[in-house]
Amino acid sequence: MTSAKLIALATAGVLTAQLTAGPAVADELMDMANEFFEPIPATIPAVKDNPVTDEKVDLGRMLFFEPRLSRSWLISCNTCHNLGTGGDDNLETSIGHGWQKGPRNAPTVFNAVFNIAQFWDGRAEDLKAQAKGPVQAGVEMANTPDRVVATLKSIPEYVSLFETAFPGEKDPVTFDNMAKAIEAFEAKLVTPNSPFDRFLVGDATALDATERQGLELFIDKGCVSCHSGVNVGGNGYFPFGVVERPGAEILPAGDKGRFQVTKTAAEEYVFRAGPLRNIELTAPYFHSGKVWDLEQAVAIMGTSQLGEELGDDEVKAITAFLRTLTGEQPEVEYPILPLETADTPPPEAMEPLGQ
Amino acid sequence: MTSAKLIALATAGVLTAQLTAGPAVADELMDMANEFFEPIPATIPAVKDNPVTDEKVDLGRMLFFEPRLSRSWLISCNTCHNLGTGGDDNLETSIGHGWQKGPRNAPTVFNAVFNIAQFWDGRAEDLKAQAKGPVQAGVEMANTPDRVVATLKSIPEYVSLFETAFPGEKDPVTFDNMAKAIEAFEAKLVTPNSPFDRFLVGDATALDATERQGLELFIDKGCVSCHSGVNVGGNGYFPFGVVERPGAEILPAGDKGRFQVTKTAAEEYVFRAGPLRNIELTAPYFHSGKVWDLEQAVAIMGTSQLGEELGDDEVKAITAFLRTLTGEQPEVEYPILPLETADTPPPEAMEPLGQ
Repeated sequence: MTSAKLIALATAGVLTAQLTAGPAVADELMDMANEFFEPIPATIPAVKDNPVTDEKVDLGRMLFFEPRLSRSWLISCNTCHNLGTGGDDNLETSIGHGWQKGPRNAPTVFNAVFNIAQFWDGRAEDLKAQAKGPVQAGVEMANTPDRVVATLKSIPEYVSLFETAFPGEKDPVTFDNMAKAIEAFEAKLVTPNSPFDRFLVGDATALDATERQGLELFIDKGCVSCHSGVNVGGNGYFPFGVVERPGAEILPAGDKGRFQVTKTAAEEYVFRAGPLRNIELTAPYFHSGKVWDLEQAVAIMGTSQLGEELGDDEVKAITAFLRTLTGEQPEVEYPILPLETADTPPPEAMEPLGQ
Repeated sequence: MTSAKLIALATAGVLTAQLTAGPAVADELMDMANEFFEPIPATIPAVKDNPVTDEKVDLGRMLFFEPRLSRSWLISCNTCHNLGTGGDDNLETSIGHGWQKGPRNAPTVFNAVFNIAQFWDGRAEDLKAQAKGPVQAGVEMANTPDRVVATLKSIPEYVSLFETAFPGEKDPVTFDNMAKAIEAFEAKLVTPNSPFDRFLVGDATALDATERQGLELFIDKGCVSCHSGVNVGGNGYFPFGVVERPGAEILPAGDKGRFQVTKTAAEEYVFRAGPLRNIELTAPYFHSGKVWDLEQAVAIMGTSQLGEELGDDEVKAITAFLRTLTGEQPEVEYPILPLETADTPPPEAMEPLGQ
């Protein structure tokens, strides 16, 4: 637990109260939960420097599913952030251009708008900055901004849709605007009305006894010091291994996390705390994607972050609570994409394996 | 042109009439078109041995987008038969497991229910037989029937959906039923109300003068002898190179087409005539996927199948007609897929390139 958070908890009198009191009655637990967490809001959150309009969202939906943003014409945002499987790809690390594997587990796009920053190391300040990354990454979509813009400009329907989504701009078809449209679409990919959300807004019956016990443990044991807010995480950076670093099979030595962004020694093996919304849908876990079982992930967090071997019943209760974070998945109509033209840069695929 | 078709045309008195008469007036052309073609029907066609029910269609939609039908968990039916880009992948040949490339261009899934048989060589008699192919092909989804069934049975929601879609069956979660559900969904992937359909049912204004000229040429020159019926093709097998085989850059010598199915020497380089519905959306063309330009494809058909160097204006007119075959693309809601369990066989990916 970071000292700042510990102080915050101690100041609130929560740790002491909870560690000494018995199981809280429903209302007290609800009140306490509301001190640390927020329900997913009913309205789309404002996005910095990018007003979310229907026109942008519609264009962004098309671009999110657009394989021609990749060099191969095979890979779209949805390939690794599959809206049908929790907004991620359920792979240890993603498969990209040429069947290369990415270095880290793909985070879910659902509720990502609520994160403090994007990527496991927070190197993108928001979703529009994030959207530019995979399009260019050699192991992902392997494209270039120039080639993306040439592609979009070669397709008259896209030119028209960009003009409508970015009215008054002299040259609306830009890599930046591509990212803004995708961000606008992604800002709508939220999963409200989970059992935990219903609990937060007053429905004491939304969690059963085990789930309540798990929520209490989650707060009491200190999980909440890194995993709080609307996304139950995703809002701060912490070392993986506050107390004890897990083995290299889970925390590979070569990936120093936020250190690679800040070059600060204190940030070696520091990562953005995982947002836990819909966590049951997004195995495998951690930036390394090495753990498939949610109970095992909880137990590892106990030893590495809290310095505590959680009991089986505690692990099961916390996991039961975490499953209450699964909300209503977004309903999305699959977009019909416009036709390319003779001016569209053609697909370029790497040679297949063994050739 | 095959002799059977030539005889059919001659018997109908069409060739003679058309080759000697001048441009037909609209009604005559419409009448003639109705002798060779049929509009896309308003109701879902019956599917052999597989009544199309809402429950099957809903399950089939999920399975069509289900990446866990592939060994890698990356590839679904929609990867190569992308419903957003004309029901195909716009690649020369598809990219599959381990970034391997398939041997032939992926045909569109749209209106495939109207084809006489599936695959370029017709080796699958219908869509349920077809659906089993790519799932097992080593260069595509690289899975096995046993592993697919184990996957589906490990996911309680799928078990329940199969029970509902195949009521009364003792063991409904089978590889065959997976294929039947996909077939039921695909039977709904039709694209009605193209300009040509509107023309066929009586709207003389649906085609402009050039498109009418193209339609006349399409009939007069004999294109119609292979490309007729509701799918303007897809209903018979013909040599690629009736008159003159195209070069190996377009007709690779190693792919002998239907010969590989029937082992009959007469069927060397015989393929199912391409269905031309939505043809403008499904470049690149031919089983080899070597031709991106529709006008070039038409010109090649002229020399290889008709033994005739079509004039530029003829090529342009025929191409204009072909563009009237683009219908309303199906609207599909992206499915929310059920969660795997600890019993689900995990993804197995090949090593990336160069490793």
